[in-house]
Parts: sequence; structure tokens; C-alpha cells
Amino acid sequence: MPKSRVEACDDAVIAIIMTIMILEIKVPETASFSGIIEQLPYFAAFVISAIMISTGWYNLMNIFKSIKVVSKPAFWSNILFLLCMSPAPMATAWVARFPFSRHTEYFYFFVFIVWYLSYYLLDYLLVKGNQREFSNDKIKQHQRINRFHLAIEVSCALISLVIIYFFPLWGIIFSILTALSWILYSCFK
Amino acid sequence: MPKSRVEACDDAVIAIIMTIMILEIKVPETASFSGIIEQLPYFAAFVISAIMISTGWYNLMNIFKSIKVVSKPAFWSNILFLLCMSPAPMATAWVARFPFSRHTEYFYFFVFIVWYLSYYLLDYLLVKGNQREFSNDKIKQHQRINRFHLAIEVSCALISLVIIYFFPLWGIIFSILTALSWILYSCFK
Amino acid sequence: MPKSRVEACDDAVIAIIMTIMILEIKVPETASFSGIIEQLPYFAAFVISAIMISTGWYNLMNIFKSIKVVSKPAFWSNILFLLCMSPAPMATAWVARFPFSRHTEYFYFFVFIVWYLSYYLLDYLLVKGNQREFSNDKIKQHQRINRFHLAIEVSCALISLVIIYFFPLWGIIFSILTALSWILYSCFK
Amino acid sequence: MPKSRVEACDDAVIAIIMTIMILEIKVPETASFSGIIEQLPYFAAFVISAIMISTGWYNLMNIFKSIKVVSKPAFWSNILFLLCMSPAPMATAWVARFPFSRHTEYFYFFVFIVWYLSYYLLDYLLVKGNQREFSNDKIKQHQRINRFHLAIEVSCALISLVIIYFFPLWGIIFSILTALSWILYSCFK
Repeated sequence: MPKSRVEACDDAVIAIIMTIMILEIKVPETASFSGIIEQLPYFAAFVISAIMISTGWYNLMNIFKSIKVVSKPAFWSNILFLLCMSPAPMATAWVARFPFSRHTEYFYFFVFIVWYLSYYLLDYLLVKGNQREFSNDKIKQHQRINRFHLAIEVSCALISLVIIYFFPLWGIIFSILTALSWILYSCFK
Repeated sequence: MPKSRVEACDDAVIAIIMTIMILEIKVPETASFSGIIEQLPYFAAFVISAIMISTGWYNLMNIFKSIKVVSKPAFWSNILFLLCMSPAPMATAWVARFPFSRHTEYFYFFVFIVWYLSYYLLDYLLVKGNQREFSNDKIKQHQRINRFHLAIEVSCALISLVIIYFFPLWGIIFSILTALSWILYSCFK
Repeated sequence: MPKSRVEACDDAVIAIIMTIMILEIKVPETASFSGIIEQLPYFAAFVISAIMISTGWYNLMNIFKSIKVVSKPAFWSNILFLLCMSPAPMATAWVARFPFSRHTEYFYFFVFIVWYLSYYLLDYLLVKGNQREFSNDKIKQHQRINRFHLAIEVSCALISLVIIYFFPLWGIIFSILTALSWILYSCFK
Repeated sequence: MPKSRVEACDDAVIAIIMTIMILEIKVPETASFSGIIEQLPYFAAFVISAIMISTGWYNLMNIFKSIKVVSKPAFWSNILFLLCMSPAPMATAWVARFPFSRHTEYFYFFVFIVWYLSYYLLDYLLVKGNQREFSNDKIKQHQRINRFHLAIEVSCALISLVIIYFFPLWGIIFSILTALSWILYSCFK
């Protein structure tokens, strides 16, 4: 399976998912600025989700750059990854409409955690299917870093589950912190 | 006709059709989980349709990988294939809204059967227009396997037509079984 | 200006315009087939518009195949071509809703005639900007054929303007005939 | 970071943003031309925004043509550029609905000025990350021209802020003039 077409499909789906999130910004019914101000919570949520998806896309591009083929399990794992990303626009719009609700924040949190997990699976299978491209040491190091990230992510997620119960807004704050940490990590790597 | 641009258009249309299906997931009006639970039947139908379209796309990618040119009949057959895929989002949303209705299940079933038939036609014309690329034996074998698949598909479809009359939900269960059989087939081939 | 990115944008816009037309197929509110039958006029109009846009795309692909660069005037003419295609989904939906109205048929007719004219302009400028690629004779022959097509198109259009006044449905019948003549022409060329 | 995938994503997002603007053209509820005439202000605003985005895309294509890699800061600046373009469809639809309102014109003006600034930042970082590709003189000249453009843009924008207060329609007239000046500049460069 050549990697170019899988890349093209990923790019298209990511571009479209970002666009669907933009579509949720409604044209105000009034001609005054108050119409825009009502849209601000959604716009903030949109920027946060867009940055998170961009970081995922950035990391994915880095992996694809260093591999040669996409194995069958990796192909299906890629479809799973795209499926897990599909509820993101809806979760973003919902959390923006009810930002102080426990339910919406848990759902938003849950959607992005599942998306992260599918990302780790895809990363693992892509590297595994291209073992000949990498030295043994490099693979071991890559998988070690990934396991380390996954451990941090899961620990923080478990703690966050409790925090959201008492302070719902934490769901979206946690997303901001995660995205920021990914950007910083990508810059200093 | 170079194959790269036909591939690019297929990728774009498939990505967009999947996205339209996602767009049907509505943002709940309430802040409680019940708003999400109401969306579950649609989400299940979306996942099934997405997997079916992915399997079609996967098989198509495999054919395109081994051909060199797209003949005129194959180009128009490709347009037909995309046209046959176009009612899929609407059929999915309709069957998800009324999953126990005979009419919606028949329609969903009909849309995907027509799509399969257009896929077989496209496969046939793509291979026929690239006869120089393949040995005679390989083409014969490919067409024999295809005729065999088509025969199974049509027989199962005819039996399903009767089953749906007495047990409408079979329409969507049949889709799950078809998609699963395609995935298994692609893994053991 | 390299041609690959202009091609990529054209492919994306054409794929998206076709998709917007699909989006207009609404999910029926009832669970019976009557909900589908109500959608049939729109579905017919969608298939006609999709075939027309496909023929335009097919011809455009053939031109792009034989050129090397996109000149500045051709770039802007390409943007004009895409802009002229943009009202097509709305015109299609409108004519499908009121197929026997003189106004909707005139509008549909007008949108596609303007689109054809922008196509001829784009064709002319693309060939003119790549004079070095072609022999003088070939260019002259190409432009002669194009002028001939344009003359036929314009004559038929002027006659159609009168026919639509007395028999509105002619607007969409004329589209079917035009698309068919293009497909036949592309097959016997 | 290879430039091809960043280009592909930019192309997709720009194509989709243009398409969202088309989607705002509503299908009239009546069968007479008056339904189309009501859409004219929006259609005019759509054409203006489309031309502005096309000019930005054209300039971006020219930069990408002459660079080799996309540095990390340039990648994130590209995401910022796309984010700044995302409210354009909504701003266009809003200004078309209330073209004589001070608020809508200020908002439209503000969205496009922020988009310009993000464009200059992206241009600056793309060239900076590819210093080896250019001679020192060429970079200096490019940055000088850019600073000059930026100075003109900012001065005109500040003056426009005052004009819009007394004559709101200036917001959209200013956009037309800007787009025209860019097209003329690109033709005589």
C-alpha cells in the first residue's frame, strides 16, 4: 500500500473536519457587535480544537515522513483514527454551548482521549510495519518515548476525570494545556 | 488519461462523503448525556457506512496501484461509481432515523447494492483497459474471482430481500456482515 | 506558475461543488418510500448537473495534460471559471424545486451558458500561454474546432432562449442533450 | 518538514472556505427572479471575498514555489494563517446581510486586516527558514518590498477606520480596491 494516497486522504479529512468546525460559527441575526460576542465561546472552543488537531496532524506528518509503506493493520488503524476524529466538531460545538456542564465537558474530554489512544495505536503500527527502515535502537527509543507519553497522558486523564466532576471547565482547560505541551515538545525535540 | 488525477478526485469525493455523514451528527440541545444517547443509532449507522466505503476505497486503491492508464469507458464508469455513492449519506441518515421500517432498510440495502454493482463494473473496465500490464492468466484469474464474488453478493442480496420483508433490521446487519467479510478477505488474501 | 497546484485546486473545487449538490438531497421526515419519491426531481437534476460538470472537468483535464505552464491571465481565467461554476448547486436545487417555471429554467440555462463561455476563455488562454508546446498547425486547428463549438453552442442557446419561453422544461432538456453530445464527442474524437 | 503536504492542506482549506461561502447562497423559496435578486448583495460580497482569498493564495503559491523546506515556526504560522481565514465566510455573509451597518463593516474589515497580518508573518517566516535558497540581496529586497506593502496597508487601514465610521460601505469598497491593487501588482511585477 503506497503511503501517498493514505496521506492525501488524511489531509483531506483533517481539512474538512476543521472546516465543519468553522461552519458552526453562525451568521448573527442582528447588525450589532453583540451578535459576534455571543459567538465568542464557540470561537474559543474552535481555536482550541483546531490547535489540538493540528498538533496531531503535525506529529502524524513527521511519522509518515520517515516510513515507506503502510501495512494492512496500519491502514485500518488509520481509518479508526479518522473515525475517532469525526465526533470532534460536534463535541466542540456542544461544549461551547454549555461550557459549565459536567456532561458536555466529560464528553469533550472522552472524545479527545479516545482520539489520542487511536493516534498511539496508529503510530505503533506504522513504525512496526516499517521495521526495516529504522535501526533497532531507534525503534526501541521511539516506542519507549511513546509509552512514556502515553503513561503521562493516561495519568493526567485519570486525575482530570476527578477534577472535571468538581470543576467542569477543567475539561477544556486540560485540552489547552495538552496542546501547548505538544507544541512546546515539538519545538524543543 | 493519467490515473493520478482520477485518484485525486476519488479521494476527495470519498473524504467529502464521509464528512457529510459526520455532519448529520447533530449538536444536542440539552446539556445532559441523554442528548448524546439519542444520537447513538445514527452514530452506529455512520460507523457501518464509513467502514463499507473504506473497504470499497481500499479495494479501489489496490486496483489503481497495478494499472497505468484510465481508458475513456473506465473514466465514465468512475463517474458512475461516484454518483452511485452520493446517496449513501442520505440513506444512512434515513435508516438511522427509522431503523425498524421496511422502507428505509430496503432503500439503504438498494443504495449499497447499486454501489457494489458500479464498483464491479469499474473494476472490470479498469482491468480491461490495462490488458498490457497483466499476463493473460492473471487477468483471467482476477475476473474469475470477481465473478465469484459477484455471484455470492447477488445470491445473498436476493435472500436478504426476503429476510428484510419479515425482519427489517436485517438490511443494516447484512451491511455489517458484508463489511466484515471484506475486511477479513483483504487480510487473508 | 506550475500547473500541478492549479489542477489540485480545480479538482478540490469540482469535488466540493458536486458534494454540495448531494447535500441538497434531504433526509425524508417519513419512513415510507413516498419520502424518497418526493426527492426524485432533485435527484434527476443533480445527475444532469453532475454529468455536465464531469464533462467540463474531463475536457479540462485533457487540456492540462498537454500544457506545461499556467500563465497569469490563465490563472485568473481559471479563478473566473471556478466562480462561474459556484452558483451551479443553487441553480440546480432551484430548477428542481420549480421545474415548470420560466424563471428557474432561464436562470439554470444562464448559469450554465456563462460557465461554458468561461470554459472557452480558459481553454483559449491556456493554449495561448503554451504556444511553444504545440506546432502552429495544431494550435490553429484547436482554435478552429473551439470557435466551431462556440458557434454551435451560441446558436443553440439563442434558439433555446425562445423555446424556454413557451416550454420552460426545455432548459433542463437542453442540458441533457448538451452533456450527451459532449460525451459522444469525447468518445469518437 | 516537506513543503508538499503543507501546500496540499492549504489548497484544501482554501477550496473549502470558498465552498462554504458558496453554501451561503440560499435556494429561493419562490419561482420568480425576485428570489435571485434578493441574493445579489450576498453574491457580490462572495465574489469580492473570493477574489481577495484568490490573490492571497496566488501570492502564497509564488512564495512556496521558490522555497524548499517549511520550518517549525513557519508551520505554526501557516496554521495561524488558516485560522485567521476561517471567520471569512461568516464575516462575508454578515456584511452582505447588513451592508450599511457600521458594526458589520468594521468586523469584515477587521477579519481581513488580521488575515493580511498573518499572511505577512507567514511570508516572513517562510523566507527566513529558507535563507540558503536565496542570495542575501534578494532576501533584503523581498523584505524591503514587504515592509513597504505592510506600511501602505496599515496606513490605509488606519484611515479607513475613520472613513467607515462616517460611511460604513467603505469597508467593502476598500476590499475591492485592495484586491484590484493586488491583481494589478501581480500582473506588472
